[in-house]
Amino acid sequence: MSLVVIGTVAFDAIETPFGKTDKIVGGAATYASLAASYFYNKVKIVSVVGDDFLEEDIEEIKNHGIDVEGLQIKEGEKSFFWAGKYHNDMNSRDTLVTDLNVLADFDPIIPENYQDCEYLLLGNLTPQIQKKTIERFKNRPKLIVLDTMNFWMDVALEDLLETIKMVDVLTINDAEARQLSGEYSLVKAAKKILKMGPEYLIIKKGEHGALLFHGDKIFSAPALPLADVFDPTGAGDTFAGGFIGYMAKVKTINFNNMKNAIIYGSALASFCVEKFGTEKIKNLTDFEVAARLQEFVSLSNFVIEQ
Amino acid sequence: MSLVVIGTVAFDAIETPFGKTDKIVGGAATYASLAASYFYNKVKIVSVVGDDFLEEDIEEIKNHGIDVEGLQIKEGEKSFFWAGKYHNDMNSRDTLVTDLNVLADFDPIIPENYQDCEYLLLGNLTPQIQKKTIERFKNRPKLIVLDTMNFWMDVALEDLLETIKMVDVLTINDAEARQLSGEYSLVKAAKKILKMGPEYLIIKKGEHGALLFHGDKIFSAPALPLADVFDPTGAGDTFAGGFIGYMAKVKTINFNNMKNAIIYGSALASFCVEKFGTEKIKNLTDFEVAARLQEFVSLSNFVIEQ
Repeated sequence: MSLVVIGTVAFDAIETPFGKTDKIVGGAATYASLAASYFYNKVKIVSVVGDDFLEEDIEEIKNHGIDVEGLQIKEGEKSFFWAGKYHNDMNSRDTLVTDLNVLADFDPIIPENYQDCEYLLLGNLTPQIQKKTIERFKNRPKLIVLDTMNFWMDVALEDLLETIKMVDVLTINDAEARQLSGEYSLVKAAKKILKMGPEYLIIKKGEHGALLFHGDKIFSAPALPLADVFDPTGAGDTFAGGFIGYMAKVKTINFNNMKNAIIYGSALASFCVEKFGTEKIKNLTDFEVAARLQEFVSLSNFVIEQ
Repeated sequence: MSLVVIGTVAFDAIETPFGKTDKIVGGAATYASLAASYFYNKVKIVSVVGDDFLEEDIEEIKNHGIDVEGLQIKEGEKSFFWAGKYHNDMNSRDTLVTDLNVLADFDPIIPENYQDCEYLLLGNLTPQIQKKTIERFKNRPKLIVLDTMNFWMDVALEDLLETIKMVDVLTINDAEARQLSGEYSLVKAAKKILKMGPEYLIIKKGEHGALLFHGDKIFSAPALPLADVFDPTGAGDTFAGGFIGYMAKVKTINFNNMKNAIIYGSALASFCVEKFGTEKIKNLTDFEVAARLQEFVSLSNFVIEQ
């Protein structure tokens, strides 16, 4: 039994009002697998890098007990590279560089020992690759979570809709939910999106938390109000990784467990933004995670007696 | 012992994507006192109208057990009138008409039988009038809640800061908290605003809920996700009224009771937006209110076991 994460493993160069980085390790699969590893110990990556990726960078992922057999290393090629600059509000950013490099013709390989996958996280990538990944598992994983973004709605909507049909949980942000459904009200948007295939929809609202929709049920998760958001890069991936990592830990797929999974994902995402890149989520102690979860409880707990 | 609400009692003409109204009864004090009356039975209004206000309009307020002795009726003058048009997103609006009329030289009169006021809600008005109202009580009320808006920060900041110093709870929205503090992070904004005088700060975030700040404590309240927001007019006033009405009901001023008060206020505000003007909050049953409170519990309740 394992949890497989597919997504980018990449280099990022990030500029925020607080500073800037040279090329640092990033990518959806990096953030998500690190996050998942705090709750589940059989996390496996499917991705691709070039030979510019250092052995020590891969070691840092392996140190979290993450299996990298499915991480292809392309000799003579370069890793995916993204450079971006965040505006002062930290909610919007400009993409400065997107060099696809090895990602341009990425064909995901699922090693034989990944076929025990029960929990599959399809990180943000082309919907075609996400779909291909699902199809390459001999048995359908018990839980498939798909993360995507507006870009794929713009350029590959049909493929995206086909892929969405095949998954259990879709995670997108509020603007994307509105775009995908054509509805402004998130309640109406969710109703339409749940008819597209997934049983569960998570709408991420950044500093406003997240909403979980399932049938007629809704759960509203708070975000931890933070004095400083240092670097939002990877927060959504970290959220998705923490979410599926918790689901793998508790095993039973239901609305109540998903509520908690969202809190676990949110807790890890709240660490992610406190430092550049993966710096913070690489080195968390169990105590820190437990304390942060407790902060979420204090933040939103209330008792109505009638 | 009583709860006094000061604010406008007015006519509104509202246009939303769902329809438009002729002049209907509105005003901060109308919404807030109606909301408070669901939880507390000694609610009293301080306001002013012209002789265009109908006896039956006042009857509808009195029917809720609200004392209108402090509602001045100016013969030969007209009531405050506001006309506005909401955009498609329902979050922004254009003001089409603001006729101050009787409000231009409003001098609040506090009837002798209002002097037992324990809970005072200063609805959105000029800070000068809000301050004058506080000063006209012989004994300082136990709890003073002030609602205000960006307009007063633009044109009467000094007066506003003086008035804020005198209150226990300040309620503003997120953009206003940022404007008042000069801080983008709401955590930093709250720290600064709490130093301006109030012990408690409520930051209203519309469809994203509300945050309560007190010392180092934070509570995050969800908003009920709604399929249709029919008319947002008065939602903030209804929230404030429900909030202070609940505080008057439970009597003890502390963080835990304020958390619940925010849920009660949010529940009433969620009704308010379902119909035009005060139509919905005029005629709620106890059962409807209790069921809505239960929806808030289901919406945000989760249990983390560690």
